[in-house]
Amino acid sequence: MITFTSDFGLQDCYVGAVKGVIYGINPETQVVDISHDIPPHDISAAALVLAGSCPHFPPETVHLAVVDPGVGSSRKGILAVTKRYRYVAPDNGILSLALQGEEVCALFSLEAERYFRSPISPTFHGRDIFGPVAAWLSRGVEPHHFGPRLQSWSRLENLTSDRTSEGFLEGRVLHIDRFGNIVTSFSAEALREIGVVERLVYFALKEERIACQVEFYAQGPIDQPFFLLGSSGYYEIAARERSAAQLLAVSPGTPLRLYFESTKP
Amino acid sequence: MITFTSDFGLQDCYVGAVKGVIYGINPETQVVDISHDIPPHDISAAALVLAGSCPHFPPETVHLAVVDPGVGSSRKGILAVTKRYRYVAPDNGILSLALQGEEVCALFSLEAERYFRSPISPTFHGRDIFGPVAAWLSRGVEPHHFGPRLQSWSRLENLTSDRTSEGFLEGRVLHIDRFGNIVTSFSAEALREIGVVERLVYFALKEERIACQVEFYAQGPIDQPFFLLGSSGYYEIAARERSAAQLLAVSPGTPLRLYFESTKP
Amino acid sequence: MITFTSDFGLQDCYVGAVKGVIYGINPETQVVDISHDIPPHDISAAALVLAGSCPHFPPETVHLAVVDPGVGSSRKGILAVTKRYRYVAPDNGILSLALQGEEVCALFSLEAERYFRSPISPTFHGRDIFGPVAAWLSRGVEPHHFGPRLQSWSRLENLTSDRTSEGFLEGRVLHIDRFGNIVTSFSAEALREIGVVERLVYFALKEERIACQVEFYAQGPIDQPFFLLGSSGYYEIAARERSAAQLLAVSPGTPLRLYFESTKP
Repeated sequence: MITFTSDFGLQDCYVGAVKGVIYGINPETQVVDISHDIPPHDISAAALVLAGSCPHFPPETVHLAVVDPGVGSSRKGILAVTKRYRYVAPDNGILSLALQGEEVCALFSLEAERYFRSPISPTFHGRDIFGPVAAWLSRGVEPHHFGPRLQSWSRLENLTSDRTSEGFLEGRVLHIDRFGNIVTSFSAEALREIGVVERLVYFALKEERIACQVEFYAQGPIDQPFFLLGSSGYYEIAARERSAAQLLAVSPGTPLRLYFESTKP
Repeated sequence: MITFTSDFGLQDCYVGAVKGVIYGINPETQVVDISHDIPPHDISAAALVLAGSCPHFPPETVHLAVVDPGVGSSRKGILAVTKRYRYVAPDNGILSLALQGEEVCALFSLEAERYFRSPISPTFHGRDIFGPVAAWLSRGVEPHHFGPRLQSWSRLENLTSDRTSEGFLEGRVLHIDRFGNIVTSFSAEALREIGVVERLVYFALKEERIACQVEFYAQGPIDQPFFLLGSSGYYEIAARERSAAQLLAVSPGTPLRLYFESTKP
Repeated sequence: MITFTSDFGLQDCYVGAVKGVIYGINPETQVVDISHDIPPHDISAAALVLAGSCPHFPPETVHLAVVDPGVGSSRKGILAVTKRYRYVAPDNGILSLALQGEEVCALFSLEAERYFRSPISPTFHGRDIFGPVAAWLSRGVEPHHFGPRLQSWSRLENLTSDRTSEGFLEGRVLHIDRFGNIVTSFSAEALREIGVVERLVYFALKEERIACQVEFYAQGPIDQPFFLLGSSGYYEIAARERSAAQLLAVSPGTPLRLYFESTKP
C-alpha cells in the first residue's frame, strides 16, 4: 500500500500522472490518497498532515509525500526507513513531524537513475523520481538500492513552542483546518513534559483572551471562542459551528501566548 | 468494500487518519471515497449525497458517513443493518434519506469499546469509533457485537415538501450542486403519489416564475432558467452552462412553490 | 483498472453514484480517480488532463472521462480502442489530445442498451451509460458488443498554435494549473518540428515580454515571470512561488505570441 500526499490539487493532470506511473510499475499495489489539497508550496502544512495520518496505517506502508517548491534544484530526494514504514519525499523538511514519532532505521539519498522515469523532467520529480521509487519499494526492491546513505534529514524550525519565564509560553498558529479551527503549536505532550498541562489559564491571541476550556466542540459556548485539546494532540481554539479563524482573523504563523497558573502564587 | 463520506475536506489529516485506521484493522478492504466536500456540519447535504450514491454499490458494502457537529456529546453512534448494506454514522439524521429507500433489519448503538481506538478523542469519533467499527464490520464481526439494539434512528425534518390546497405545493431548495443546478425538495415519486406529476405548470421562486420544462440541460433555452427532472429523482431548476443558483441568488433552504394545473378548471 | 475523470466536483453524489454503479457491475475492479475538479463543462481542460495522465497507466486500463454539457442531446457516446487502452466518453472532443498520441484501433458508438442502466436519466449518462460500459469492459466484454463502428471522433480546435511568417508564432493560454503556472499552447514537439525550439527569444502576453528561460521553477528570478518547458511537454510561464496567472491577469484562451530568432538576421 502506498499513501500519497501532495499540493498538486485535483484540477490538473499531476495526481493522475503519478498514480499512472505507480500502477504502471506495480499494478498490484493500492494508492491511497491522503490529501492533494495542501496549500501550494506549504511544507509545514504537509508535515502536519503526514504526522496526523501516517501513523495509523498498517506496517510496511510506503508513504509518498510531494510538496516540492525546490524541484530540480540541488535539494535531495530522500528515502527514510523506519521501524514501521518507508517514506519517500523531497528532503525539505516535509518529514519533520512524521519522523519525530518514529524509530528511524536508515536514510538514503535517491540517486539510482535506473529506478527513475526517463527522461526526468526538471519540474516534476513526483512523476519521474518519487512516484517510481515508491512503486519499486512496494514491489520489494530493498531501500539501499536507491542510493547512498544519508546521515540526517532536513527539519523545519518553528513547528514547536518556546517557553518563557513569565508564566506564559510563546507559540504560534500552526494550521487552520477546514472547519476554521485554529491549531496551535502547543502540544499536550510538550505541556505535560514541562508540567503545565494541568494549569492552563488562557490563550492570548491578538487582543483576545480565550479562557474557556472544553472537551469537545458541541460543549463550547455559542457566543465566544473557546479552546480544547484537538485530536492530533495539539491545543485548538474553536468556535461553535463556525470558523474561529475567521472570527479572530488569524492565519498560520500568527503568534499567540498560552498563560498558565504558576504553582506558587 | 467501505464507502466513506464526510465533511472533512481534503486539506487536513482527518481523511487520511480514518483511512489509516481502517486499513490498519483490515488491510484487505477497499475504502472508496464518495465525498469529503460536504459543507462543514451540513447533515442535510450529506443525507442527500448518501441517498444519491449508496444504493448503487454492491450488496454487503459498508457505508461510513461522518458529518458530526455533535461529536463528543450525548448523540449516539449508530449501526444500521439493511437488507443490502451496513451503515455506520452518528445518529443525527445523516441517514434520513438513505434508510428511507431501504428495508431496515436492525439498528445498534455503538458502545462496545473493544472495537474502538483507545484513547478515544472527544473530538474525532470518525477516527476512533466510526472508522474502526466500519473496518471490523468489513472483517466479518457480526453487527450485534457493537452494542445494544436501538428502536429508531434520528430523522431530519424539512427534506420533503408540503401540499397545500390552492393548486400549489410548498417546498424549498434542498441543495445547490457543483454546476449551480438548484435541486428542489419535490421528488417525482412524491408528485406521482399525489397525482400531479403530469400537471406541473411552473415553479415560483422569489419573484421569478420558471415555466419552461425540458428533459435535459442542453435542451434548455439560452436566455432563461428552466426546470427538469434530475438524475436523483428530484426536480431541478437549471440554466444553460451557467449557475442557476447564482442567476437567481438562491441557497439551500430558500422556499419555493410548485404550481400545478387543477384537474377541473 | 478504470481511471475516472470528470467535472462532477466532490460535494455532490455524482462521483459516488458512478463508482457505485461500476463496483456494482464489477466488484473486482479498481476505480482510480484522476480528477473530478475539471471546471464545469470545460472539455478542453479535461482533454489536457487526460493527455497528461492516461499515458502513464498500465496497458489494458479503461479510461472513463465524463465532461458532458450535451448530455441527453444527439451527441454520441464513444468507445475508442487503442493499442494500449480503452477510452469511454461522450464524443465531444474530450479525447482530442489523448488519442493524438495513440494508435487508434477501432471506434464504437455506444448504443447497446443491454449494457446500460435502466431507465436512463437524460441528465446523467455518466451513471447510466459511460460508467456501466467502463465496468463491463473491465469484466471482459468485447468492444464491438457496445455498438456499431464509428469512422472518426470529434476533435477540439484551438488546442494547437499557428505559425506566422514574421518571426513569431501565435498561440494562446491553454490552462492555468493549481500553482498559477500558465500552460501555453506551444509544445516542444511542435516547435521542434518547425525547427525553432533552439531559437526561442520571448513570449509576448498582453503588454508584457517574458524573456527569461529557465529549467526549473526554483531557478527563476524572484521578481519577474519567466518561462520554462513544463512536464507535459508544453511551454509554461511561471513565477517564483506565486501565481503567474494572477500576476499577469490571464485566463485560458488569452492570446499570446512566441518570438524566435530567425536563422538569417
